[in-house]
Amino acid sequence: MIKITFPDGNVREYEAGVSGLDVAKSISEGLARNVLSARVNGEVWDATRPIETDARVQFLTWNDDDGQMTFWHSTAHLMAEALEALYPGIKLGTGPAIEGGFYYDIDPGEHSISEHDFPKIEKKMLELARLKSPYVRKDISKADAVKYFTEKGDEYKLELIEKRGEDEALTLYEQGNFVDLCRGPHLPDTGKIKAVKMMKVGGAFWQGDDTRQQMTRLRGISFPKQKELTLYLKMLEEAKLRDHRKLGAELEIFMFSEKVGAGLPIWLPKGTALRSRLENFLKDEQVKRGYQPVITPHIAKKELYVTSGHYEKYGEDSFQPINTPKEGEEFLLKPMNCPHHCEIYGHKPRSYRELPVRFAEFGTVYRYEQSGELHGLTRVRGFTQDDAHLFCTPDQVKEEFLNVLDLTKLVLKKLGFDDYTAQISLRDPDTPEKYIGSTENWDKAETAIIEATKEAGLTTTTELGEAAFYGPKLDFMIKDALGRRWQLGTIQVDYNLPERFELEYIGSDNQAHRPVMIHRAPFGSMERFIGVLIEHCGGNFPLWLTPEQYTILPISDKYNTYAKRIQDELAAMDIRGIIDSRAESIGRKIRDAEVNKLPFMLIVGEQEEADGMVSVRQRGEEGGDKGKMPIAEFGDFFKALL
Amino acid sequence: MIKITFPDGNVREYEAGVSGLDVAKSISEGLARNVLSARVNGEVWDATRPIETDARVQFLTWNDDDGQMTFWHSTAHLMAEALEALYPGIKLGTGPAIEGGFYYDIDPGEHSISEHDFPKIEKKMLELARLKSPYVRKDISKADAVKYFTEKGDEYKLELIEKRGEDEALTLYEQGNFVDLCRGPHLPDTGKIKAVKMMKVGGAFWQGDDTRQQMTRLRGISFPKQKELTLYLKMLEEAKLRDHRKLGAELEIFMFSEKVGAGLPIWLPKGTALRSRLENFLKDEQVKRGYQPVITPHIAKKELYVTSGHYEKYGEDSFQPINTPKEGEEFLLKPMNCPHHCEIYGHKPRSYRELPVRFAEFGTVYRYEQSGELHGLTRVRGFTQDDAHLFCTPDQVKEEFLNVLDLTKLVLKKLGFDDYTAQISLRDPDTPEKYIGSTENWDKAETAIIEATKEAGLTTTTELGEAAFYGPKLDFMIKDALGRRWQLGTIQVDYNLPERFELEYIGSDNQAHRPVMIHRAPFGSMERFIGVLIEHCGGNFPLWLTPEQYTILPISDKYNTYAKRIQDELAAMDIRGIIDSRAESIGRKIRDAEVNKLPFMLIVGEQEEADGMVSVRQRGEEGGDKGKMPIAEFGDFFKALL
Repeated sequence: MIKITFPDGNVREYEAGVSGLDVAKSISEGLARNVLSARVNGEVWDATRPIETDARVQFLTWNDDDGQMTFWHSTAHLMAEALEALYPGIKLGTGPAIEGGFYYDIDPGEHSISEHDFPKIEKKMLELARLKSPYVRKDISKADAVKYFTEKGDEYKLELIEKRGEDEALTLYEQGNFVDLCRGPHLPDTGKIKAVKMMKVGGAFWQGDDTRQQMTRLRGISFPKQKELTLYLKMLEEAKLRDHRKLGAELEIFMFSEKVGAGLPIWLPKGTALRSRLENFLKDEQVKRGYQPVITPHIAKKELYVTSGHYEKYGEDSFQPINTPKEGEEFLLKPMNCPHHCEIYGHKPRSYRELPVRFAEFGTVYRYEQSGELHGLTRVRGFTQDDAHLFCTPDQVKEEFLNVLDLTKLVLKKLGFDDYTAQISLRDPDTPEKYIGSTENWDKAETAIIEATKEAGLTTTTELGEAAFYGPKLDFMIKDALGRRWQLGTIQVDYNLPERFELEYIGSDNQAHRPVMIHRAPFGSMERFIGVLIEHCGGNFPLWLTPEQYTILPISDKYNTYAKRIQDELAAMDIRGIIDSRAESIGRKIRDAEVNKLPFMLIVGEQEEADGMVSVRQRGEEGGDKGKMPIAEFGDFFKALL
Repeated sequence: MIKITFPDGNVREYEAGVSGLDVAKSISEGLARNVLSARVNGEVWDATRPIETDARVQFLTWNDDDGQMTFWHSTAHLMAEALEALYPGIKLGTGPAIEGGFYYDIDPGEHSISEHDFPKIEKKMLELARLKSPYVRKDISKADAVKYFTEKGDEYKLELIEKRGEDEALTLYEQGNFVDLCRGPHLPDTGKIKAVKMMKVGGAFWQGDDTRQQMTRLRGISFPKQKELTLYLKMLEEAKLRDHRKLGAELEIFMFSEKVGAGLPIWLPKGTALRSRLENFLKDEQVKRGYQPVITPHIAKKELYVTSGHYEKYGEDSFQPINTPKEGEEFLLKPMNCPHHCEIYGHKPRSYRELPVRFAEFGTVYRYEQSGELHGLTRVRGFTQDDAHLFCTPDQVKEEFLNVLDLTKLVLKKLGFDDYTAQISLRDPDTPEKYIGSTENWDKAETAIIEATKEAGLTTTTELGEAAFYGPKLDFMIKDALGRRWQLGTIQVDYNLPERFELEYIGSDNQAHRPVMIHRAPFGSMERFIGVLIEHCGGNFPLWLTPEQYTILPISDKYNTYAKRIQDELAAMDIRGIIDSRAESIGRKIRDAEVNKLPFMLIVGEQEEADGMVSVRQRGEEGGDKGKMPIAEFGDFFKALL
C-alpha cells in the first residue's frame, strides 16, 4: 500500500500502481469526470499514469492553468491526427500548448493549408474526438524511437530525438491512429474535447532558426463545452472593440512615432493628464505612508549593473552600452531603478532607528524587446515603474508587507479591479541550497508573507519553488472585465542586492547588520497598467480619472457664452470638461461625445439658459437622460458619484 | 569729415582718423577717463585706434563685458611684461582674457613659479602699471614677425605665426618693454590697472593638445580700483561658504555616486521634495496659461535627430548611439525635447483655430560634457528642462512672448531673484543671407520681442548679430546675491524645426501654412537653477520651498508627545517640519538646526506644554527670539510670511 497525501493535508492509502484518476474515482465519480491530469509530487502527470510510491497528489481540472495546458496539448495531438488523415504525407515538427490554446508546426509537403480548410479540419477533429480514443503513454528506447520515425519518414522528429541523451528514456503517446514523440502529460481520452476552433495559419521557422525550413504553424483553441467556446469567441470580439491601441488613438491617450521608434510611447496631453492623476493619487498615498520620493538618472556606468548583477544577466540581450566621445567610459540605459536606490541607501551610515527607509520613484526604465514582440502599451521598450524599495530589518518584513498589501488593495479598488488573487511564490523545500540568504530569514519572510496576506483577507494561491533565488514574492493576479488574467503589482523580498551593495545598518546591539530589501510596484508599469485599464473599462475611465468629465453641447452658437459660464462654475467645483462649440448639429455632437466616452453631456439651449439650468445625459448603464437641473444640483449629483 | 553715429541714434562729424577716445573727450573728460575700448561698426577696437570712415561707435567701460575683457587682456600683457622682467628667458604661449580675469600660459624654462611668487609678481605688475605705458598697435608683415620672434627666440609665437595666412596682416602690441603678437584690442595705457591679484598657478598643454609641451598657466584678475578687488575677494570667500556642492551635501539635497557616474545627479528625498515643489508651482501656472503637459521617451531613433539636424551638429561630441542586440537599430539619448514635441504636433492635422498649441514637459535630457568640465549641479551630463514648445501663427508671436515674459517674471520673483535684465539677440543687419525664414517673419518676430519686453517693463540690452540662424531670442541674465551673473530662462523663436519636420496648419484661407515655434524654459534646467538658487540664498530657501519649515526642539524627551501634537496641528495648517527628539542638549539641537538652515525652531518644555504654547526662534536678519505664543498664533505669523 502507498500513502496519497491531498492538498488539504488528508492522507489515504491505496494499492501501489493506482492512478490519479482511480484515486479521484474513489472519492467521487463527479470529481473523476472533471479530472484532466494530476500534479504528483509537484510534477504534472497523466491522470491515468500509475503511482508506485507515497505521493502528494493534486487533481487538475479545467479551473487549473496546468489542467488547461494538458487539455490543449492533447488537442494539438488530436489536430495532428486529423491533419495526417486529411493530408497524407505531411511531416510534423513540434506541437505544444500555449497560453490560450495550442499550435502544431508542420511541413505540409505538397499540400497547402489555408483558412478555408479550417471547417474541414475542425470537423475531422471532432469526429475523432467522439471516438474517445485513450491517450496511451509508452516508454521507448532511443534506438527504437529512431527506427520508428525513420520508417515513418519524419525527419523533424528524428532531429529532435538525436538531441536527446544516449541513455535517455523517451516516451511516445498514442491515440487512435496517431503516435507522437512526447513527454506528455495528456488527457485520459479524446472524448473530453467537445469544442474546437482553428484560429490562425501562419509561418514559423523550424526550431525558431531563420536559416532553417519554413514550417506552417496552425493555431487553435479547444474547450470541454461548446458554450465555453461561444463565450470565448464573444470575448474576443469585445476585446477587439476594447483594444487599447485602437481606443488609445481614438481618445488621444498616446501615440507612437516611427522616427522616435517602435515600443517607445509618447503621451499625448489627455494621456499625460490621466497618467499624472494616477501618479499623483499614488504619490499622495505613499507620502502618507512614509515613502520618500527620490529622482535618479536614466543612465549609469556599466559598473553599477556589474555590481548589481543585472549586466551579467541581461547585458547581451539589452540595449547595448553607450560610449562617450573621448574617455572610453561606458554607460547603460537604466533597466531597473533598484541599483540606484541601493546607492542612495548606502551613501551615508544608517541606524536601525531610521528603518524602514522607503525610497519611491516613478522611474522610467528601458529594456530591449524584439520589435515583433511589441504590443501597444502592454509590451514596450521604455516604461515607467511606480517603483519603491523598502529597506528594513528582518523583523519588519511582515508589517511592511501588510502596508504594501493595504496600498495595493486601495489602488485596485480605486481603479475598479475587484477580481484578483494573490499568488505567493515560496522556496522549493527540496532544494534549499538554491537560495541566497539565511534559512532563518527565509522562514521569517515566508511566514510574514503568508500571515500578512491572511490578515489582509486576500484570496491566495501558493507556488512552491517559484520564488526567485534571492527571495520570496507575491504577485497580484487580476481578472479584467473580459475575464482575462493579468499579472500586475508585485512585491519581492530581496536578500541579494543588499549583499552585493554591502548595505548595512547599525543595530541596537551597535553591530552592523544587512537590511532586507523589498521591491514593490502596485501598478507595475504605468504604461502596461493603463493599457490594461483601457481594455478593462473599454475607455470608460472611472470618473475621477477620465480626461474630460463632461462636454457642454450648446444647441447653437447663441448659447456659447452661457456654456462658458457653466464651465467656469464647474471649474470652481473642481469638475473639468470641455465645450463643443462646433457648428455641428446637436445629434452629431452627441454621437461624437459618445465616441469620445464623455461621462456627461450637458445640453444647453434657450430654455436652459432662461432657467439657469443644464439638461444632463449620463453615459453608461445607469445613465441616460437625467433631465434639467441647476448647475449646483448637477455638481452635487456629480460629486456623489466620485 | 566722417560721420560718427552713437547708440542713441545721434550723429556727429569728426576729422577722419579721429579715435574713439578723442570722440569721448569731445563729449566729456569724465567719460573719456572711463573709456577702456570702443565698439566700432560692431567690432571692439582700441579706444586709441584711428577711425577713417563713417562709423557706428559705442564706448566700452568697466560696466560692459567687452570693456572688462579689454581690461583683463591688457593686464595679461602687463603680467607678461612683469614675468619677463622677473624671470629672464621664459617663453610665452598665449594669454587671453577669460570670464573673471585672464591667464598667460608660459614655458618657464629653468625657472619654477609657485604661489609663493605671487606677491612679487603683483608688486612688479603694479610698479609697471604706474608707468602709464601706452599700449601701441603696430601692423607687421608675416616675414617681419617671424624675424622678430626668431631673434627673441620665442618658438611658441613662431608656431602661432606659421598658422596665419601668407598675406595676412599681423599686428603687434607694445607697452613698456614688452611686445606681443596680438589682435588686440587693448587699453589706452597701463595706468588704468590699479589693483591686481594672482589667483592660481597650474599646468596646461600647449594648444590644448595632450601630446605637446606642458606649460605653466598663471591666472589672475585685475580691477580699476583697489576697492573693487577687496569686494571681489570678499565675494569669493562668501561664494565658497555658499558653494552649492558643499551646501547640497550638508542639506541632503543631492548626491553623486561613482558607480552611477560623474555629472549624473541623484536627488535625495529632501532635494526631490524641493524640486517637486518648484516643478508643481510651474506646472500649475502653466496649466492656468493653457499649456498642455506631454511625456516623451528619453531615447529616440537616430533618424529623429537627423531630421532635426541635432545629429549633424552634436553627433560626434555626444553620447554615442545605442545599438540593439539583433536588428541593427540605432538609438540616441535625447539631447533636446523639441524634436519629440514636433512629432506630437505633426501627428494629426492642425487648424489655425487650435493655435497656439503649447506642449510642456519637464523633460530630462542627456548631453556629454568632458569630466573635467563638470561642476556640481551647474554643469552636468543629465538635466531636466522645464521645457515647452509653443506653435503659433506669425501674428501670435508677440502675445505668446508677452505671456512667457509674464510667467518668467513671476518665477523669478517667487524665487527672490530681483536683479535681472533681458538680453535680446537679433539678426546681424549686414548679413541677412545667414538666416532661415522670411524677412517679413523675422521683422515681425523681432518687433514683437522688442515691443513685448517694453510692455513687460523689462530692462533690456540688445545684441545685433547674436540671433541663432533659425530665429531671434531673449535670455534672462540674472544677478545673484553675490553679484555674479547667470544666464537662466531663454525664449527662442525657431523657423527651422517647423521647416525640417514639415509642420503645418490650415489657415483661415484654407491653405497650409508653417507655424512659428517658440522654445522656452523659465528655469532653464532644474539642476542648474537649483544650484544657482542654493548659492543665491546660501541654503536659506524661500519659506514656501524649503524642505522643512520648522524643527520642534523638546527640552527633554518628556515633551516628545507634546511635540508630536504640535506637529500634527501644524500639518493640519499645511506647515511641514520635523521633531528633533535626539537625546542631545538643547544647545546642540539649536546649533544643528542652524547648520541645517531650518527657518523656525519651536522650543518646547514644561512651561510651554502647561500653557499650550511654543517658544519661537526665527532664522535670518529679521529673525531671533520671537517669544512664546500659542500654536494658532504661530500659524498665522508663519502664513503671513509666505
